[in-house]
Amino acid sequence: MSDFSVIGKRVPRIDSREKVMGEAKYAADYSMHGMLWAKTVRSPYVHAKILNIDTSKAEKHPGVKAVITAKDFGGWHWGFMPTTRDEHPLALDKVRYLHEAVAGIVAVDEETAEEACSLVKVDYEELPAVFDPEEAMLPGAPVIHDYRPNNMSVEYHWNFGDVDKAFDESYFVHEDRFATGKVIVGFLEPPASLAYYDPSGYITVWAAKQSPYFHYRHLADCFNLPLNKIRIIQPFIGGGFGGTKNDTVAGDMIAVMGSKKTGKPVKFIYSQEEVLTTCRRRHNMIVYSKMGVTKDGIIKGVYHKVIANGGAYTAISPLSMYLAGFITPLPYKLPNFKYDAYRVFTNNPVSAAMRGHGATHTRFACEIQMDMIAEKLGLDPLEMRMRNAIDNPKRGEAYTTVNGVILNTCGIKEALQIVADDDLWKNKKSIEKMDGAVSWGVGISGTSYPGGARQLGHQSCAAIVRVCEDGTVNYLTGATDCGQGSDTGLSMMVAETLGVRYEDIDIKRVDTAYTPVDAGSYGSRVAILAGQAGIHAALDAKKQLLEAAAKAWNVNADDIEIKDALCFLKSKPEQKMSFNKLAKIACYEGSGAVIIGRGYSSYGVEKLDFDKGTGNGSVSYSFTSQAVKLGVDMETGKINVADFLIAHDCGRPLHPITCESQNEGGAVQALGQAIYEEFVMEQGDTKNSSFLDYKMPRSTDVPRIRTVDIITDDPGGPFGAKEVSEGSHVSTPPAVVSAIHSATGIWFKEMPVTPEKIVKALKKEGKWPGGQ
Amino acid sequence: MSDFSVIGKRVPRIDSREKVMGEAKYAADYSMHGMLWAKTVRSPYVHAKILNIDTSKAEKHPGVKAVITAKDFGGWHWGFMPTTRDEHPLALDKVRYLHEAVAGIVAVDEETAEEACSLVKVDYEELPAVFDPEEAMLPGAPVIHDYRPNNMSVEYHWNFGDVDKAFDESYFVHEDRFATGKVIVGFLEPPASLAYYDPSGYITVWAAKQSPYFHYRHLADCFNLPLNKIRIIQPFIGGGFGGTKNDTVAGDMIAVMGSKKTGKPVKFIYSQEEVLTTCRRRHNMIVYSKMGVTKDGIIKGVYHKVIANGGAYTAISPLSMYLAGFITPLPYKLPNFKYDAYRVFTNNPVSAAMRGHGATHTRFACEIQMDMIAEKLGLDPLEMRMRNAIDNPKRGEAYTTVNGVILNTCGIKEALQIVADDDLWKNKKSIEKMDGAVSWGVGISGTSYPGGARQLGHQSCAAIVRVCEDGTVNYLTGATDCGQGSDTGLSMMVAETLGVRYEDIDIKRVDTAYTPVDAGSYGSRVAILAGQAGIHAALDAKKQLLEAAAKAWNVNADDIEIKDALCFLKSKPEQKMSFNKLAKIACYEGSGAVIIGRGYSSYGVEKLDFDKGTGNGSVSYSFTSQAVKLGVDMETGKINVADFLIAHDCGRPLHPITCESQNEGGAVQALGQAIYEEFVMEQGDTKNSSFLDYKMPRSTDVPRIRTVDIITDDPGGPFGAKEVSEGSHVSTPPAVVSAIHSATGIWFKEMPVTPEKIVKALKKEGKWPGGQ
Repeated sequence: MSDFSVIGKRVPRIDSREKVMGEAKYAADYSMHGMLWAKTVRSPYVHAKILNIDTSKAEKHPGVKAVITAKDFGGWHWGFMPTTRDEHPLALDKVRYLHEAVAGIVAVDEETAEEACSLVKVDYEELPAVFDPEEAMLPGAPVIHDYRPNNMSVEYHWNFGDVDKAFDESYFVHEDRFATGKVIVGFLEPPASLAYYDPSGYITVWAAKQSPYFHYRHLADCFNLPLNKIRIIQPFIGGGFGGTKNDTVAGDMIAVMGSKKTGKPVKFIYSQEEVLTTCRRRHNMIVYSKMGVTKDGIIKGVYHKVIANGGAYTAISPLSMYLAGFITPLPYKLPNFKYDAYRVFTNNPVSAAMRGHGATHTRFACEIQMDMIAEKLGLDPLEMRMRNAIDNPKRGEAYTTVNGVILNTCGIKEALQIVADDDLWKNKKSIEKMDGAVSWGVGISGTSYPGGARQLGHQSCAAIVRVCEDGTVNYLTGATDCGQGSDTGLSMMVAETLGVRYEDIDIKRVDTAYTPVDAGSYGSRVAILAGQAGIHAALDAKKQLLEAAAKAWNVNADDIEIKDALCFLKSKPEQKMSFNKLAKIACYEGSGAVIIGRGYSSYGVEKLDFDKGTGNGSVSYSFTSQAVKLGVDMETGKINVADFLIAHDCGRPLHPITCESQNEGGAVQALGQAIYEEFVMEQGDTKNSSFLDYKMPRSTDVPRIRTVDIITDDPGGPFGAKEVSEGSHVSTPPAVVSAIHSATGIWFKEMPVTPEKIVKALKKEGKWPGGQ
Repeated sequence: MSDFSVIGKRVPRIDSREKVMGEAKYAADYSMHGMLWAKTVRSPYVHAKILNIDTSKAEKHPGVKAVITAKDFGGWHWGFMPTTRDEHPLALDKVRYLHEAVAGIVAVDEETAEEACSLVKVDYEELPAVFDPEEAMLPGAPVIHDYRPNNMSVEYHWNFGDVDKAFDESYFVHEDRFATGKVIVGFLEPPASLAYYDPSGYITVWAAKQSPYFHYRHLADCFNLPLNKIRIIQPFIGGGFGGTKNDTVAGDMIAVMGSKKTGKPVKFIYSQEEVLTTCRRRHNMIVYSKMGVTKDGIIKGVYHKVIANGGAYTAISPLSMYLAGFITPLPYKLPNFKYDAYRVFTNNPVSAAMRGHGATHTRFACEIQMDMIAEKLGLDPLEMRMRNAIDNPKRGEAYTTVNGVILNTCGIKEALQIVADDDLWKNKKSIEKMDGAVSWGVGISGTSYPGGARQLGHQSCAAIVRVCEDGTVNYLTGATDCGQGSDTGLSMMVAETLGVRYEDIDIKRVDTAYTPVDAGSYGSRVAILAGQAGIHAALDAKKQLLEAAAKAWNVNADDIEIKDALCFLKSKPEQKMSFNKLAKIACYEGSGAVIIGRGYSSYGVEKLDFDKGTGNGSVSYSFTSQAVKLGVDMETGKINVADFLIAHDCGRPLHPITCESQNEGGAVQALGQAIYEEFVMEQGDTKNSSFLDYKMPRSTDVPRIRTVDIITDDPGGPFGAKEVSEGSHVSTPPAVVSAIHSATGIWFKEMPVTPEKIVKALKKEGKWPGGQ
C-alpha cells in the first residue's frame, strides 16, 4: 500500500468545491436563446385504448408552438432486447399505466405548456386492468400486450445440479415466501434536458443521463441520424442509481421532437410527482424459497420461484430477472440450484433497475431463510454462514460457482470474521437482554455483488490522456460520474499510473462529440472498465515521455521511472528532473510533439445465456458482511437503528473517502427499503407521490456506520479494486430484518418492516405490551 | 485526379448551411447567467507618462462591479519573442499610442460600463511624440521604449552572395523608393469574448481567436494557472487574416481579470471604431530597392533597405521583418541579395501580421521595379520574368535559394505561361490603344508565398479520428477554421484517406479541453500541417478497420482496401461490404472495440536564423502569376478594375471551391490595399475610424476573376497541396499598379494609388485631359 503515491489516499473529491459552492451546473440549469418548454400530457386511465387524439385546441392556444403525439415518431419503439422493444416514446395505440405519456406540448414557457396539456382531447376506451402479478398470471386476466397474451414479460427456468435430489438428501428443508416492496431510487435531481435539433440535422442535448451513449444511440435510431450528428453533453448529475437516468423518458423525446418541429431549443424538467408516479421503479418481487441443509447447516440446494411485478413494459428486466437468479450461488457454496422466474406485466408503472439490481430480493430471502434455519438447527447464524462461505481462492486459482461465475478473490470469510470479532456481534446476547421499553437486537448478513459489468453488446471503452507542455494532464473519458465520485477515482488511477500529482489531472464531463464511446455508468463498471482504459491510456502516454527522457539523458527507457511528479533514473536516482520539465522536453523535442495516450479496456464480453442462467458477466465480485444493532419500541413498533458495521471486500479502496461514502449511502438507501419506503398503490394509482408521503431515511434516521475495507487485491481489478456500495446496499435489508427478529423474536418476510406491521405482528403473537 | 473520390471535388462547404441560415454562433452570441460586461478606458494622449490612476469614482458608480488597471496584472507582459515582450494588457507606466488601453470597467450592462469609463481619472504627463519611422530613427527623437533608446524595434542585416560585385557587373542598375500604406484586415466580426474565471481556478473563454492555443498559453502564464485549467472554446469566427485575432487584446484580459475579481462571467465586444483605431494593422513599409540586371534582363542582385513603421510595440514583427526579406529571392533566381531591415517604434497603433505577411511590401517593390527595368531595356515584362523564373525541379530534386529556401516544386513558369497564353495578355497592346474617356491597360506580376509555417517553437499538431459504430466519423483537431474553409478541406482529406464519404465526417470546433494542441491558424499552415495530422489519424483508424476486416474474412489485411464507403478485397473486388458494416464488425468484434485513430504532423521545425536570414521555414511554396485589366478615367482618376486572371500553383486544389473563393478573397482584399485603403493619420490619430471612411472594396468594385489552379503535386503537401490565397493576395498589388502604368504611362511607387494621386500625377506629367 505504501507503494502507492495517490491510490488509497484521502484526497478531496474532484468535484467537491464546485458542488459545495453551488457552481456545479445540472441539466435544468442550462438555457439557450429562444428556448421553449415542454410538458407531458398524461393518461387518466390505467389501461385504455386510444381511439383518437385531437390536438387542434391545444395547437391554437396562444404560446403553444408544437404538439407532439406518437405518430410523430412513426412507430419507433425501444427496449433492452430486440425481442422486447415494447415501449414507445408516447403511447401509440393504448395506455397501460396511469399517467403514461400520450402527448407533449411545446410552448413559450412552462406555465403555457402546462395549461395547454388539458386542451389535448384524447378519446379512450377503458379496458379491464390487473395490478397484482399473481393475478395477471391467471388465465383470463386482462391482456396488457398482444405479443405476450399470458402477460409473461420474462420467463426463465434454470436448473443447476439436481435440486430435488439435494432436498431428498437434506436433513432439513425449509420453505417460505418472501416479498420485497415497490421502491424508487429517490434521486433529488429529476430528469431534465435541454435539446436542440438544429436545422442542419444535428442534435445537441444536455441531459441527466448515467449512460449518455445509450441515449445517443436511441436518438440516432429514433431520428434516423448518424451517430456523429448526435451530441450529448453531460452536465453534473444529481444521482442516478439505475432505472430512469439510465434510460430514455418521454420528456427526452418530446424535447428533441419539439425542437425538430419548431427549430428552437426545448427544455423540460420533470416534477418529483412525475418521477414518483411515472418513472422506473425497482421491481417488487415475491420469492418462494426452498432451502435444504445438512444437520450441520451445510446448504445442499436452493429452489427459487420468483414472481416479479413488471409493470406495463419490459425495459431492462431480462437482465433484472437474470441477476435475481445469478446471485443466489454467492457468497455461499451451493451445489444444486433451481430457478423459475416470472416477470409479469401489470397495469403499474414500469419496473426496472436500481442499485443492487436484482440481488436485493433473492439475497434477502436467502439470508433470512438461513437465519431461520440456523435457529431451527440451534446453530449460531454467523457460524452457519462461515461453514457455507466460499473460500478465498489461492492466488492464480479460481472458484467457479454452479452457474459458471468465476471468483478470483473472495473476502466473505474475512468479512464474516470481522463481524464475528466485533463487540457488536459478540455482545448480541447481552444486547438482546437489555431491559426497557425498547427491545434491542443484533442481526447479520453476508452477501456478494458483481462489479465491472461486461455482459452487454458493446462493453469496450476508451480513454485519452493528453499531457500538456507544462506537465498537467487532460483526461478524456466517456464514463459518467453521476454523483458516485468516479471522476475522482479515475483521476487518481491516471495520476498514479503516470506518476503525477492527483491535482495535475483535469477530467472533463462527457461530451459525445469529443469523448470516446463508453458503455455507461451501471453495473458498477466505471472504476473497473473505464478505470482500466484510463490506466492503459496513462501507460501509453508514459511510454512516450520515457522515450523522450531516454533520448534527453541518452539512456535506456527501461531504466527510467516517473513517480510523485519526478522523473529519475532507477539505477541512479539522483539523476532526476521534474515532470514539468520532462513534459516540456517531450513536447518541444525535435519537431515538437503532442503527447496523447490512448487506452482501452481489454476485458472481454461474456454473453449471458439468459435461458440457461450461465455466464461470468462481471470482472469481479465483492463480498460483504454486515451487522446491525437496533431497538424496537414494543408498544409503537418504532425502530431505532443504532449501529451498522459493514465489512466489505472491495478488492482495494482506491479512494477511501468514496468507499466510505458509497458504502454508507448504499446502506442508508437500503435501510429505506428495509423499514421505511414503499409506494402505496391503489388500482395502479401511486398514492404517496411526494417525498412528504414517500418516506426515505433522513439524516436523523442514519445510524452510526462503521465500514471496514477488506483488501483482496483482485487480479481483474484496476489496482485490485472491485465494486463498492451495491454490496452494502444488498447486505443491509437482511441484516436489519434479522436484527428486528433479534429484538422482537418475530420473523418478517416482507419489506418494508414498518411500525404498523411490527405492532400487528406483536399483537398476533401476544407480545404487544400496549393496552387492549 | 480521377483516382480521388473526395479530393478535388466541389462538395459544399461543411459550414455553409449554418452560416447561410444564420445559425452559426460567434463569440458575441454567447451569454451566461449573471454575466457582466467589460469596456475599456483609453488614453487621450499619443505619448504620456501615467502619473496616477484614480478609480474610486468609477468603482462607486451604480452597476460597476470591478475596475481593472495594470497593477492587477502584476507587470505581466507579452510579445512574440522573449526579448521583445514589451506590451502589457493595460498600459503600465506610460501610454505609447492614442487610445491605448489604460483601464477596464466591468459592470452590469454595456451602457453602465461605457458610462463609468469617463469616471476613471488618469493623471498624465504628456511626452513629445514621433509618428514617422524615418524621423523616429534620427538622433534626438522621442524615445518610446527605454529598452530601445534608438527606437529600433527590429533590425536585420543580411548578406547573401556579393551584391556590390553583382551591381558592378550589371548592365543596368535600377534604384528606387517604394512604399506601402497602413491598412487593416477589415474583418466584419470584431474581437469579442465571454470569459469565466470560476472560483475553482478554471478559466473558460469563448473567444474569436485564430490560434486558441496562443491565447491559452497567454492566460495560463498571466494568471499563473496550469494549462489544463484553461479552456478556450472556439465559436465560429468572422475572419482572421492575422494580426488581431492571432494575438491577445486588452479586452480579453480585462474580461478574464474582471471575472476573477467578480466571480461572474464577463463579456466584451469591441466596436469597429476600437478595431480601426487600436487593433493590429499591417506595417506600412518604405522599401529602398536596388536591382541590377544583365542586358538580357537577367537579375544579378537585389539590395533592399526596408524601413517599417512599427507603431508602439513589437508584437510579432521579428517575423514580419524576416518574411519581408526572405521572400525576395522568390520566384526568380537571385544569386546575390542584401537586406537591411529597420522596424521602428512610433507613436502609432501597433503594426503586425496580415495575410501575405511581410511579402506584400517587397514583392510589390520588386515586381514594379522589374516592369520599369523591362521598359528601360525594351523587354516584354512577361518575357523578362520568364527568363528569370525558377524552373520546376525534377521530381526528387530540389532548388535551393540563396537564403536556403528549398523548393521541391515550382509552378511559376507554368503560371507565367498561362498568363502569356491568355487573350488578356495577348491583347495588351490593342487594349492600351482603345479610344475613349477611359484609358485601358494590362499589368502582370509573378510572386510566391510560403505555406505550412513550421518555424515557431511548437509546430506539432495532432488529430483524433474516431469511427462510430455506424461508420460515421468524429474528427477532432486543434486547428481553427476562422472562415477560410479549412474544416472542409481537412474533412475531405480524412474522408479520402479513410475511404468514406465526405458527409460522413463531423469535425468539431476547437475546445482546448478536448481537442489536441495545435500551433494555430496562421502562415497558411492548417491544410498542410493539421491536414497531415488528420491524414495520419485516418490511416491509423483505417489500419484498425482493415485488421477487423481481415479477421472477419480470414485474409491478409494488405489485400483489403476501403474506398467510397466500401470495403473490398483487392484481389477479388466482388468480395465486399459497406463501410457501415465494417465499422459495426470492428466495434463489436470480440470484446468490443473503440476505433480511435491518432495522428501527428511529422514536419520538423526549422528554426529561423533571424539575424542571418536563413531557414527553410515552410513546408512548401506557392507560385502565382496574375494579369489585370483595368481602365483609368483620365479626368477623374477613377479606376475601373475589369479583369483578374490568377494562375496559381497551389500544388493541388483540395477543394476547388475554397481555392477559388480564397484566391478571389485574397485578391480583392489586396485590391483594397492597391487602390482604395489607407488609414488617414494625423499626429497618431486615425481619422477614418469607420468603414464609411475607410474604404474597402465593395461587391460592386470586384472585377471578373478567373483563377486557374496549377497542379505541381508537391511531395511535402497533403495530396500534393500547397497554400492558397496568400499568393494571390501578394500578386494583386503589383499587377494592378502595373496595369495602371499600362493605362496611364505613369509609374506609381506608393500604394494605394487613389484617383487623387492619379489626377495629381497626370497633371504633373501634363497628361490630364480635364480643364484648368
